[in-house]
Amino acid sequence: MRTVNVDLDDRAYPIHIGSGLLQAARLRELLTPHLPGKQVMVITNERVNTLFGEQLRTALSNLQVDVFEMQDGEAHKNLTSYAAALDSLMAKRHNRTTCVIALGGGVVGDLAGFVAATFQRGVDFIQVPTTLLSQVDSSVGGKTAVNHPSGKNMIGAFYQPRAVLIDTDVLAHLPAREYAAGLAEIVKYGVIADPELFAWLQAHTAELNARDAGALQHVIQRSCEIKAEVVAEDEREHGRRAILNFGHTFGHAVENLAGYGAWLHGEAVAVGMVMAAAFSAALGRLPATEAERLADLLNALQLPVNLHGAQAQLPGVDDMISAMGMDKKVKDGRLRFILADAIGAVSVVEDYDAATLRQVLKQFCES
Amino acid sequence: MRTVNVDLDDRAYPIHIGSGLLQAARLRELLTPHLPGKQVMVITNERVNTLFGEQLRTALSNLQVDVFEMQDGEAHKNLTSYAAALDSLMAKRHNRTTCVIALGGGVVGDLAGFVAATFQRGVDFIQVPTTLLSQVDSSVGGKTAVNHPSGKNMIGAFYQPRAVLIDTDVLAHLPAREYAAGLAEIVKYGVIADPELFAWLQAHTAELNARDAGALQHVIQRSCEIKAEVVAEDEREHGRRAILNFGHTFGHAVENLAGYGAWLHGEAVAVGMVMAAAFSAALGRLPATEAERLADLLNALQLPVNLHGAQAQLPGVDDMISAMGMDKKVKDGRLRFILADAIGAVSVVEDYDAATLRQVLKQFCES
Repeated sequence: MRTVNVDLDDRAYPIHIGSGLLQAARLRELLTPHLPGKQVMVITNERVNTLFGEQLRTALSNLQVDVFEMQDGEAHKNLTSYAAALDSLMAKRHNRTTCVIALGGGVVGDLAGFVAATFQRGVDFIQVPTTLLSQVDSSVGGKTAVNHPSGKNMIGAFYQPRAVLIDTDVLAHLPAREYAAGLAEIVKYGVIADPELFAWLQAHTAELNARDAGALQHVIQRSCEIKAEVVAEDEREHGRRAILNFGHTFGHAVENLAGYGAWLHGEAVAVGMVMAAAFSAALGRLPATEAERLADLLNALQLPVNLHGAQAQLPGVDDMISAMGMDKKVKDGRLRFILADAIGAVSVVEDYDAATLRQVLKQFCES
Repeated sequence: MRTVNVDLDDRAYPIHIGSGLLQAARLRELLTPHLPGKQVMVITNERVNTLFGEQLRTALSNLQVDVFEMQDGEAHKNLTSYAAALDSLMAKRHNRTTCVIALGGGVVGDLAGFVAATFQRGVDFIQVPTTLLSQVDSSVGGKTAVNHPSGKNMIGAFYQPRAVLIDTDVLAHLPAREYAAGLAEIVKYGVIADPELFAWLQAHTAELNARDAGALQHVIQRSCEIKAEVVAEDEREHGRRAILNFGHTFGHAVENLAGYGAWLHGEAVAVGMVMAAAFSAALGRLPATEAERLADLLNALQLPVNLHGAQAQLPGVDDMISAMGMDKKVKDGRLRFILADAIGAVSVVEDYDAATLRQVLKQFCES
């Protein structure tokens, strides 16, 4: 087992990464130091609960363990599910010393985190991410949220977990699309901060596609380290943390326009990164060959690199611009972009040429 | 104008107290330094908007000012109103640099604060409290919340405003019951921390009942100072801040059992304080004469000191105990009480005699 520490003063917490962490005895040992009272509320979904819920209940058999199953999918990460989870905590009379455990992917983690952040003005929270995407991204960093019909993650809080447990064994259960979607965020870490990781990914696409345990442990740890380092520097996204959104301004718009669920988040981020790289190249910031290197790697990892496939109809340029305008990263009506200067280095850019943006969007929306 | 500073490191903020602060020119001058962008969302209700909304819109005429009117009353401080306020922010395309201004009493402030805490994971927030209760209590300290059908303030966040503007002139508009309810929290500050304030209140009940401007400025400032000092020491209620809840464990149960709205919060706190003092006396912590002094002062300020009046039927002892068991201040199934050792000194007590509690409740519930 490897441990990455997220350094946030009194809110610091460990991320444990390894094989077999979800075995009941191991789980009990890892969870116990982080449980403040005698109550636990596991927030999960039916599929994940069937796979791993029993292990968790066995591990915590000495406590009051209640389970709230939400419906699966981004479309259910909304205020309705949020209210239902709160109803469940109230009905089972959970108090301030309860601990919410998120057992599932990013949707479960985001919702459970927001529930923990706001139930009785905040109770303890532990993340047990069961998808590759949530292991390398959403379970680390303290962003919690639900969606509004007009925009993704529009309602939420910054709220840090007490611990994150990442069991690499669970990835064997993932459908191919979901697994690939997780790889997209790992590629992102290479682009924003680590050219060596990017090169390593290029050299090991076969191992990654085969879900090789050693390769996975390496890239998950490296991803968590990069994210932990960025988050420790800028917890509330006033500055540098924004680089974690590389590909996300485009990606969120793509997801939003297609209707939540049509694209997996990681898939939308993959094509969003290709769009961000194309925009960077069109602005003369990034050599076109580097943008191609990114698209080639994503393609080799079975990820989408254009807008075809996941939706019946391509979005219009104006629809994209409008959808991006509703993105949280907007400051006083002006879009901010995370653009690539090289593989391994990105900048936050507010001063860009709008005509070039339209041109780049046109390439993706009309072909 | 007097200014009380709440000392919370990077979340420190000023409370300005005085006459005429809501006049447009003055308001513009006081608000402008705290507005991060070009958008403002005023959360208020119809009655308050009619009284003071125009002044606020005039003061901020150079900005995009939108108004969300919630329905008046504790019964509407719920997830439904919360979701409607978020819908309004989304519909008007507010971004991360918006500022939510709460214009109203505690209900408006609590809801608006929770909206500000969670819209886009937190936007700026200013409190303009228009009731005496919210001026001395809920607008200071960063507690935001909405109610759950099973319990008051069960969903919320700790979230500090950027500034609080208290105009004493607005108190002229308050109905008598609401005004008296505000005095209850001022009495509370005397009991928990300041015997001199308590004595001053005893000596000035006539001026207070007549809403004398000088008397009000004095007691509001002193109340805000005490609250600011307690909050600065213990922002998230891990310890000392709990003393602010004197009378609230009983009071919340009373409110809850009668149905939200039957009692005003301050009225329930008044009778809750009398119950807490009676419990303190029954446990031998507080001389019975001091408990009487408290009841006499509350009575002189036109506040209820028993359970009659606001509800058709007295609650049962078991109902009260059960309702208190759902209170946030419960730790692992054991009730915690704030008990008085003297006028001006209280303790947090977890180890109490349950039979004595029943006996005290019986006095109030059966007579």
